[in-house]
Amino acid sequence: MSEKLAVAVLGAAGRMGSEAVAAVEAAEDMDLVAALGRNDPLETLVSAGARYVVDLTVPDSTEANVRFAVEHGMHAVVGTTGWDAERLGRLGDLLDGSPGTGVLIAPNFALGSVLATAFAAKAARYFESVELIELHHPDKVDAPSGTAVRTAQLIAAARGEAGVPASPDATAKALEGARGAVVDGVHVHSVRLRGLVAHQEVLLGGPGEQLTIRHDSFDRASFMPGVLLGLRQVAAHPGLTVGLDGYLNLND
Amino acid sequence: MSEKLAVAVLGAAGRMGSEAVAAVEAAEDMDLVAALGRNDPLETLVSAGARYVVDLTVPDSTEANVRFAVEHGMHAVVGTTGWDAERLGRLGDLLDGSPGTGVLIAPNFALGSVLATAFAAKAARYFESVELIELHHPDKVDAPSGTAVRTAQLIAAARGEAGVPASPDATAKALEGARGAVVDGVHVHSVRLRGLVAHQEVLLGGPGEQLTIRHDSFDRASFMPGVLLGLRQVAAHPGLTVGLDGYLNLND
Amino acid sequence: MSEKLAVAVLGAAGRMGSEAVAAVEAAEDMDLVAALGRNDPLETLVSAGARYVVDLTVPDSTEANVRFAVEHGMHAVVGTTGWDAERLGRLGDLLDGSPGTGVLIAPNFALGSVLATAFAAKAARYFESVELIELHHPDKVDAPSGTAVRTAQLIAAARGEAGVPASPDATAKALEGARGAVVDGVHVHSVRLRGLVAHQEVLLGGPGEQLTIRHDSFDRASFMPGVLLGLRQVAAHPGLTVGLDGYLNLND
Amino acid sequence: MSEKLAVAVLGAAGRMGSEAVAAVEAAEDMDLVAALGRNDPLETLVSAGARYVVDLTVPDSTEANVRFAVEHGMHAVVGTTGWDAERLGRLGDLLDGSPGTGVLIAPNFALGSVLATAFAAKAARYFESVELIELHHPDKVDAPSGTAVRTAQLIAAARGEAGVPASPDATAKALEGARGAVVDGVHVHSVRLRGLVAHQEVLLGGPGEQLTIRHDSFDRASFMPGVLLGLRQVAAHPGLTVGLDGYLNLND
Repeated sequence: MSEKLAVAVLGAAGRMGSEAVAAVEAAEDMDLVAALGRNDPLETLVSAGARYVVDLTVPDSTEANVRFAVEHGMHAVVGTTGWDAERLGRLGDLLDGSPGTGVLIAPNFALGSVLATAFAAKAARYFESVELIELHHPDKVDAPSGTAVRTAQLIAAARGEAGVPASPDATAKALEGARGAVVDGVHVHSVRLRGLVAHQEVLLGGPGEQLTIRHDSFDRASFMPGVLLGLRQVAAHPGLTVGLDGYLNLND
Repeated sequence: MSEKLAVAVLGAAGRMGSEAVAAVEAAEDMDLVAALGRNDPLETLVSAGARYVVDLTVPDSTEANVRFAVEHGMHAVVGTTGWDAERLGRLGDLLDGSPGTGVLIAPNFALGSVLATAFAAKAARYFESVELIELHHPDKVDAPSGTAVRTAQLIAAARGEAGVPASPDATAKALEGARGAVVDGVHVHSVRLRGLVAHQEVLLGGPGEQLTIRHDSFDRASFMPGVLLGLRQVAAHPGLTVGLDGYLNLND
Repeated sequence: MSEKLAVAVLGAAGRMGSEAVAAVEAAEDMDLVAALGRNDPLETLVSAGARYVVDLTVPDSTEANVRFAVEHGMHAVVGTTGWDAERLGRLGDLLDGSPGTGVLIAPNFALGSVLATAFAAKAARYFESVELIELHHPDKVDAPSGTAVRTAQLIAAARGEAGVPASPDATAKALEGARGAVVDGVHVHSVRLRGLVAHQEVLLGGPGEQLTIRHDSFDRASFMPGVLLGLRQVAAHPGLTVGLDGYLNLND
Repeated sequence: MSEKLAVAVLGAAGRMGSEAVAAVEAAEDMDLVAALGRNDPLETLVSAGARYVVDLTVPDSTEANVRFAVEHGMHAVVGTTGWDAERLGRLGDLLDGSPGTGVLIAPNFALGSVLATAFAAKAARYFESVELIELHHPDKVDAPSGTAVRTAQLIAAARGEAGVPASPDATAKALEGARGAVVDGVHVHSVRLRGLVAHQEVLLGGPGEQLTIRHDSFDRASFMPGVLLGLRQVAAHPGLTVGLDGYLNLND
C-alpha cells in the first residue's frame, strides 16, 4: 500500500501548472494522480483518488475548484490570485464544516521571498532607517511590485506597533522622484533593467551599521519548493491559512 | 523623583566603555551615576546608587564585577569576553539566590549582526545550499572571524535538526583554498581588504532563487543601540541570558 | 541589392550555435545564409555566399573551419575553445597572406564579463587591496573558474607593472582554506550555490573606500550581443584579434 | 639635497585640509613646507620654498590662491569647489603664460569614485538598460547627489554619441516617484539611511547579464590617495586639467 501523497494539479497546462506537474512527478513522496486543464471535469479528482489538490488556474475558477476540493475532503494548496476578503470569508465558513481539511492560499511560493519579507518585518523595529529597492525586467507594467508594496506595509505596521518614528530624512532639495515612492511612510525604489527577473532588497540602517535582506528570483522554478512544502504541511494545518509563512518555523 | 535608569559603566576608560558612557549620557531615559576605571573601587557602585551595571572591562575582572553587582541586587549587561561554561555555571548558581536580578552576557551588541545570525539560522533549513562570506580590514589576525564561525555552527545545527543534507558541490578540480574553510560542513570565505571594517554575508540558494542576509558594521557606534536595549530589557528578564537575541522579539 | 551581412553559423545544432542562429536571424542588419551541423560540407559556405562565419563548434574542427573561411576571404568570429599558442601562430601566418580578412578569437562573448575584467585590470594599480569572489551553480567541477583565474592574472600583471606591493594581510591564525586560493598573489574565493549561474566580483579597497565591479551572467543569451558586435566589427579589424575587448572602445 | 616634493597645504585647519596635512607628512616622497590657515599670508609659500600647493579652502579665496601659485611657478592641486566656466577660462589664460606649470582642479579625489564614473561612461553604450542608485546618510539635503547627477549626464552623453536608444521601460501604472528621478533620460534613485556615508551603484543590463559598478566611501580618508596622486603627477601635466581621471591611465 502506498504511503505517498495523492496529488492532483489544476491548471496543469499553464506555465506554473506545468512546472508543478513536473515537480510533483519528481518528488519521491508524492504520486501525481491527475493533471487537469480548463475543460476537464472536476469529478476526475474523485475518480483519480486525489487527496491533495494544487490550484494554479485563474481567478474566475479558483473558488469553485477549492470549494469542490473541500467538499470532497481534499486538502488544497492554492497559488491562484483573486482571493479577496469576501471569498476568504466564504471559504472560512465552508472549512468550519470540514474541520479536518486544510487549505493554504499563498500569494507567493518562493521560500526566499516569503522569508525575506518575514525577516524584514521582524527587524524593522530595531533600526532608525529602512528603505526598499525592488528590481525587475523592463517589461513589468506596475511599479512598485506588489511584493514590495506588501513588504513596505508590513514594515510600516511593525514600526508603528513598536512606536518607532519615521526614518530620518533631511532632504530639502530634490529632483522629482529621486526619493522614490512612499508606501505607508516607507520609501520604495523601483529599478527596471534588461537581464533581471525579480529581485528585492530591504535596507535597514542604524548608527554605524546596516542590515540588508535581499531576495533574487531567477526563474519560475523558485516557486516549486514552496508548493511541495505546502503539500507536505497542509494536512497538519487544518482550516484556512493565508501565506506560506504560516507553515514556516520562524518562531522557534 | 526620577524614573530614569541609574546606570554605572565599568571599563569607562576603554574604547567601548567610553562610547557607552556617551551613549548612556545621551539617552533620555537613563542617568549615568558612575563611570569606573580599572583602579576604582566597586563600592562606588553602591554609594552612587547604581541599579544597572554595564561591564566592558577585561576577562580577568568581569566575573568579580558581575558577582558584586548581583550580590548588591544590580542588573548587569556584560560585553566583556571570557565567559566560559564554568563561569556561566557559577553565575547561574549565584542568580538562583537572587531571583529578581537579571544578567545579560552578550558576545555581540550589534543588533544587525545578532539579527542576521538569527535569520540565517532560521532560513538555513529551507535551502539546498548555504555558504558564508565574511569581509574585514586587513589588520585582522584570525580567519574566519569568530562571528562567522558561530554563524556557520548555528546554520549547521539547524540543518542537521531538520535533516537537510550537505550543500551540493561537484567540485573535482580545485586550487587549494578556493572553496574556503569548512566549518561543520558549511563553506566559509574570508576576504581581507583595506577600507573595510566588519561585514558578513550569508548566501542561501535553492532552485531559481537566492536569499542573501548581509550585515555591515562601519564603526563601534553600532554596538551602542544594543547596549541601551540590553539596559532597558534586563530587569524584565531575571536570571541569566546569553546572547542579545534572547531580548529581541524574533518569535512573534 | 542587399547591404546586410551574409552570415553562416558553424555548429548550428549545438546549444551556443542554436542561440546564434536565432540571434542572427533576429538582427535586422544580417542575413543568415547557412547553418551547418557537424556533417555538412564546408563548401556550402561558398555556395551560400557567406561573407562572415561564426564558429561555435568543437576544438577538433575549429582550426580547419577558420582556415577554410580565411582561404575563401570570409571574416570569422570564433567562440570555440582550444586555440593554443601554436594554433594562433599558424592562423596569424595564414592571415598575413590575406590582409583584408579579419578573425576574432574570443574566449568570452559576454560584454559585461569582458568589460568587468578590463576595468578590474585598469583599476588594480590604484588600490592597496584587491580580492576576487566568483560564484557559480554547484554542478561546476573546477574552482576557481577560468574567467576568475584569468582576471586574477591580469590584475597581478597590472599591479606588477605599476610596482604596487602585495595586498596587505595580517592573518596569523586561519582555518585551512579560509583565505581562498592564491593566483599570482591575488586571493580568489569560489562559492557554489544552487540557483546561481555564473557571477564574479572584484573587490578593490583603499583607505576609507571600496570599488566593486560585479558581473552576473543569468543565461546563455548574454553571449549573443557580443557575437553580433563581433560580426559587425570584424571586417574593420583585419588580421587576428584575441579577446572581444579588442573591439570595445575602452581607450577613448 | 632633497629630492622630495616641497608641498604647502592651504586651508590646513579645515576638515579636508587637516587630513591633507597628515597625509603629506606621512608620504615618504614629500616634505610639508607650509600649512596655512585663512589669515596666513600667501607670501609664506614663497619663503617656505613651496613647489606644490594643495588648495582646500573656500570658493571665495581659491581663485586668488591658485593665481598666486601659478604666478610663482608652483604647481597646484585644487579640491575647493566654485570653479565655474569663467574662472576656469581666466586660469587657462594665466597658464598659457606659464607653460611649465600644472594645475589640477578636481571636484572629487576619491580614486574609486572617479574610476567608477569613468567605467560607467565607457560601458554605457554596450547595454540596453542603465540605472543608478546612490545611497547616503539621512542628513544629506540634496537628492540625487552631485556625483550621481554628473555620472548620469556622462552616461547619457556616451549613449547619445553611440546612438543607443533609451533604456526600455514598460511601466504603465506607477506610484509617484517609484521609478526615481530622470536625469538626461537616466533613472536615478536616492536612498537615505542612517549608518551609511556615501555610496553609488551603476547597474547596466543586457539580455541575460548585468554589470554592476559600485563605489563605497566610508570616510574622508578616501580622498587622500587621490590628493597624493595629484601631487605626484601635476608637474608632468602642464596646463589645466579638470578631473582626476585626466591623470589616471584609463586608456592604456
